[in-house]
Amino acid sequence: MPAVKFIPYNKTIEIKTGTNLLTAADQGGIYLEGDCAGKGTCGKCRVRVAEGEREVPTEAEKKHLSQAELDAGWVLACRRTVRGSLTVEVPLIKDAHSRKTSLAGGVEILEAEPAIQKIALVLERPTVGDQKADLERLLAATGHDQLQISLRELTALPALLRNNRYQVTVTHDHHRVISLEPGDTSDQLFGIAFDIGTTTIVGSLIDLSNAAVLAVAATTNPQNIYGADVISRITHAARVEDGLNQLQTKVIEAANQIIRQLLKQTGVARDRVYEITAVGNTTMSHLFMGIDPTYLAPAPFIPAYSRALEVEATKLGIKINPSGRVIFLPNVAGYVGSDTVGVILATNMDQRQDNCAAIDIGTNGELVLAAGGRLMACSTAAGPAFEGAEIKHGMRAAAGAIEAVSYNDNRLEIKTIDDAPACGICGSGLIDAAAALLAAGLIEPTGRFVNPEENPERIPEQFRNRLRPSQVGYEFILTPAAESETGEDLVLTQGDLRQLQLAKGAIYAGLMILLKEAGMNAGDLDQVLLAGAFGSYVRKKSALAIGLLPAIAPERIIAVGNAAGDGSRLALASQTIRKRALELPAKVEHLELSTRPDFQDIFINALNFQGI
Amino acid sequence: MPAVKFIPYNKTIEIKTGTNLLTAADQGGIYLEGDCAGKGTCGKCRVRVAEGEREVPTEAEKKHLSQAELDAGWVLACRRTVRGSLTVEVPLIKDAHSRKTSLAGGVEILEAEPAIQKIALVLERPTVGDQKADLERLLAATGHDQLQISLRELTALPALLRNNRYQVTVTHDHHRVISLEPGDTSDQLFGIAFDIGTTTIVGSLIDLSNAAVLAVAATTNPQNIYGADVISRITHAARVEDGLNQLQTKVIEAANQIIRQLLKQTGVARDRVYEITAVGNTTMSHLFMGIDPTYLAPAPFIPAYSRALEVEATKLGIKINPSGRVIFLPNVAGYVGSDTVGVILATNMDQRQDNCAAIDIGTNGELVLAAGGRLMACSTAAGPAFEGAEIKHGMRAAAGAIEAVSYNDNRLEIKTIDDAPACGICGSGLIDAAAALLAAGLIEPTGRFVNPEENPERIPEQFRNRLRPSQVGYEFILTPAAESETGEDLVLTQGDLRQLQLAKGAIYAGLMILLKEAGMNAGDLDQVLLAGAFGSYVRKKSALAIGLLPAIAPERIIAVGNAAGDGSRLALASQTIRKRALELPAKVEHLELSTRPDFQDIFINALNFQGI
Repeated sequence: MPAVKFIPYNKTIEIKTGTNLLTAADQGGIYLEGDCAGKGTCGKCRVRVAEGEREVPTEAEKKHLSQAELDAGWVLACRRTVRGSLTVEVPLIKDAHSRKTSLAGGVEILEAEPAIQKIALVLERPTVGDQKADLERLLAATGHDQLQISLRELTALPALLRNNRYQVTVTHDHHRVISLEPGDTSDQLFGIAFDIGTTTIVGSLIDLSNAAVLAVAATTNPQNIYGADVISRITHAARVEDGLNQLQTKVIEAANQIIRQLLKQTGVARDRVYEITAVGNTTMSHLFMGIDPTYLAPAPFIPAYSRALEVEATKLGIKINPSGRVIFLPNVAGYVGSDTVGVILATNMDQRQDNCAAIDIGTNGELVLAAGGRLMACSTAAGPAFEGAEIKHGMRAAAGAIEAVSYNDNRLEIKTIDDAPACGICGSGLIDAAAALLAAGLIEPTGRFVNPEENPERIPEQFRNRLRPSQVGYEFILTPAAESETGEDLVLTQGDLRQLQLAKGAIYAGLMILLKEAGMNAGDLDQVLLAGAFGSYVRKKSALAIGLLPAIAPERIIAVGNAAGDGSRLALASQTIRKRALELPAKVEHLELSTRPDFQDIFINALNFQGI
Repeated sequence: MPAVKFIPYNKTIEIKTGTNLLTAADQGGIYLEGDCAGKGTCGKCRVRVAEGEREVPTEAEKKHLSQAELDAGWVLACRRTVRGSLTVEVPLIKDAHSRKTSLAGGVEILEAEPAIQKIALVLERPTVGDQKADLERLLAATGHDQLQISLRELTALPALLRNNRYQVTVTHDHHRVISLEPGDTSDQLFGIAFDIGTTTIVGSLIDLSNAAVLAVAATTNPQNIYGADVISRITHAARVEDGLNQLQTKVIEAANQIIRQLLKQTGVARDRVYEITAVGNTTMSHLFMGIDPTYLAPAPFIPAYSRALEVEATKLGIKINPSGRVIFLPNVAGYVGSDTVGVILATNMDQRQDNCAAIDIGTNGELVLAAGGRLMACSTAAGPAFEGAEIKHGMRAAAGAIEAVSYNDNRLEIKTIDDAPACGICGSGLIDAAAALLAAGLIEPTGRFVNPEENPERIPEQFRNRLRPSQVGYEFILTPAAESETGEDLVLTQGDLRQLQLAKGAIYAGLMILLKEAGMNAGDLDQVLLAGAFGSYVRKKSALAIGLLPAIAPERIIAVGNAAGDGSRLALASQTIRKRALELPAKVEHLELSTRPDFQDIFINALNFQGI
């Protein structure tokens, strides 16, 4: 079998002739970027064939790679078949999480009130006059004599007691014994809160005794090899043999990787982590639990379940204390998941008395409106533009991404993350760029670039050589090849603008429908909360300028960080908040937008680029 | 490696040179009789080497086998080492359960009130206007919306509903969904009640809809290869690496074999069996569950647990519906197990207002006294004599066993089970024989045979040639070689009488202690219930004659059959009775006899053969 060596990882795998190179990388545990699930359309799985036979470039490769790159051996992994041994250079992934603050969230947990309790005991020894069985002796001493216990813990109990002079620490959750440990370990009580995003998975290690966040770690959701968005993942689960299992395995592996990292970083022992909470959209929840999500994709969009699921970690392959559990918070509907429940918890929207909207912008935008005691939510298909996908030079918010564009004094100013040489544009940069070019008069309110041939006078002179024809309409050079890291012009295309219009129109229209159902106008909103990493970086002025948000005083727009993840942390640290989470789905009115004629009408009106 | 072929099974296994032949049989799945765990003392693992090299007989073989047998190639498997290929003839085991009625028990279950319920549903189909998730839709229709569900059932749910026109039958136990089945299967609801004896395992298939016992099957407890009594099994679990696992595997395999047999006999599908109840002594309970029983053996005799354990069948390797459960009823103490709880349930002792004792005679005798609303229990080490072990020609109650001996008109009458040629003596025969020889004046009240040399006149002439010297004292020929199936004299030895004295003395003394604690005399007892197969066959007159029971009017002594097994069936068929079972251990006062000086005193006084 041919051998494929991946550098700089120095990992070599043997693989059958005829295997796709993207598949080979996956089997070797090598992560490649990508948004299109190997269809050849996103152009992101680029690798360089350093040694081994070269092939004639495919059309997709010609489209996504320059001649210089093709000459240097760059290929798209998804377009290449392994026919003989190869050495393949993998570009190092830029840390997608250099903007770390967005992970940590904005909420401080004030009071630890964990669901799990530890009790350190020294038991009376049995005698012929006191023949209570070991378990009954133990539980009587805890004051919780109805606790359930696993066979694994029970069979270890007799020797545990006798080898440790009857000194033992019982960890329990008021229903069952989670762990029996020799001696007094009552000062070691930890949990991990996960936010399972379609794109990014974040885990936080929490000391349950004081609710302190000890460490945060994140990784790309490796399910992306099967597609960037939830629909392609559902399709993979539904249509590919073993697809559901593949998707589950990926996310579980990623969670375990985060756990390893958190433990290493803090020195906490694996067995001392007793509980995990998780939030995610409804599809992520299904895939994490290994539950068939098939019927989430077609109308009427029915999930297999919506309640919270509590499952033994070992059943999922999650590596914490072997009797530990995972609690995935409940979903509201097929496209309003426990991530939205997390947002509501973290922002206290279920307890606020004023009028407030929360928007969590991702591939799907989830919107919540709290109005006069009512809670309403909907989901709207924004598409992946805000995450940089399906944008020609789109990328996630990582070093070198254009994150801010401003137009002042007839000049464009462009800023990249970490001030690194530009290599692409992320969501906040995309909105800024559109707002700046609108301000510069280069974009019509309809979203079309001004035609420089028809209306040359409308193009300020300093931009004339930056607006040029492309395959569809025109494109604007944000960073010329000479200044970019990639050595090519970084452009904003007409197609990119169209993606942005669809995305922002969907969010806007969703919010309008919620307000309409509540009998309110945008002006009635006391606050608009922007959740998620994207919400932390989008510039309010630009968001208002392109009509992503209705006309609201900017000071009422507040970024709340990773509120979904905060909700997961809160539900881990506080029983009271967890209880609120479990009750939320029954309190939230879900509006299904997809079949409402009024939504379609508002959506089409909202496509234009201007405050509406 | 040498090959050992077992006939008539026609099973051949390859095995390392130097392996013990008893071990080889075990590995080949061939069951051999035996009570001494391979120590060479019981002489029951006899097989014939039909082909292959013979060896010089060991001392143990010379003791247990006649010269004719040795000449014919008979050996004790536990004394033989495999040094080359062999063909080994295994004597067919006599059906230990030909006295079938004793398995079926004496209690009729009057009212089915199963813990498990089936609900056949036709669900409303989801629409965009009714987007309830599949699980929430299903549970709302059952009227039990808090039922828990396993990931396995949940992931199957979406396709199950859509492939079966939303027609589904939910099986649940009011806490969790056990099974989801397409269509209407509400007429198929089955369970199995087990009685896990040290010697014999009995299972009953029960239609939970009407509490009918559909079939009963039994097998020898194959743990006997590790010893006949609970102490040798605990020792094996405690001292031998992987010993606990070996013991658990044996009993689980036997249970699965019984399940197979019950299903085959009735045509019931495996997946339609949803629940198992089990009773057994405390050691059997630990071994079945795979729980370390080490500290049950030494004083102060502490079990790992005493409560009922409810465990997923799959976790134990028990093959019924994959979400089915096993409920092992609670134990009272280390030597008063759930089998005694079963006896109490089946005899209603916890609800009777009169004074009543129940005695379940086995290797351990468990005794219960109900007196004026109090329930007291104790265990007393009777030893295995009543089961035919450690009796020279002892055997279990199978065809050919001498089961009844009477002395009338100066003649001994001997009856065997199935009137087959005699091949041994079982427990009831042993008691009868002692009582008959006492009546004939051949045994002193102290338990010694009358010495025919010192007192020849006391030996009736017709018995003179049947009482002869043996290694220790004398022995009496019950069946001469010419009439026996084995071709040898079947005898009752002085040693056999000593075993019987120890056994009956222990039972008697235990009952006396219970009465003493209650401030009662034997005359205060309205009834004495004899539980177990043995209790069904022992003749009251003989039991009274040898002082196994105190002097009570025979009509007050009642055999109640396999009451422990009946208790298991009742707890399976009736929630109310199961609830009683779970509460029983707290209501039963357990008396520990082993360290009581008054027990020792009564025991020694009770050794004599005569009504006391």
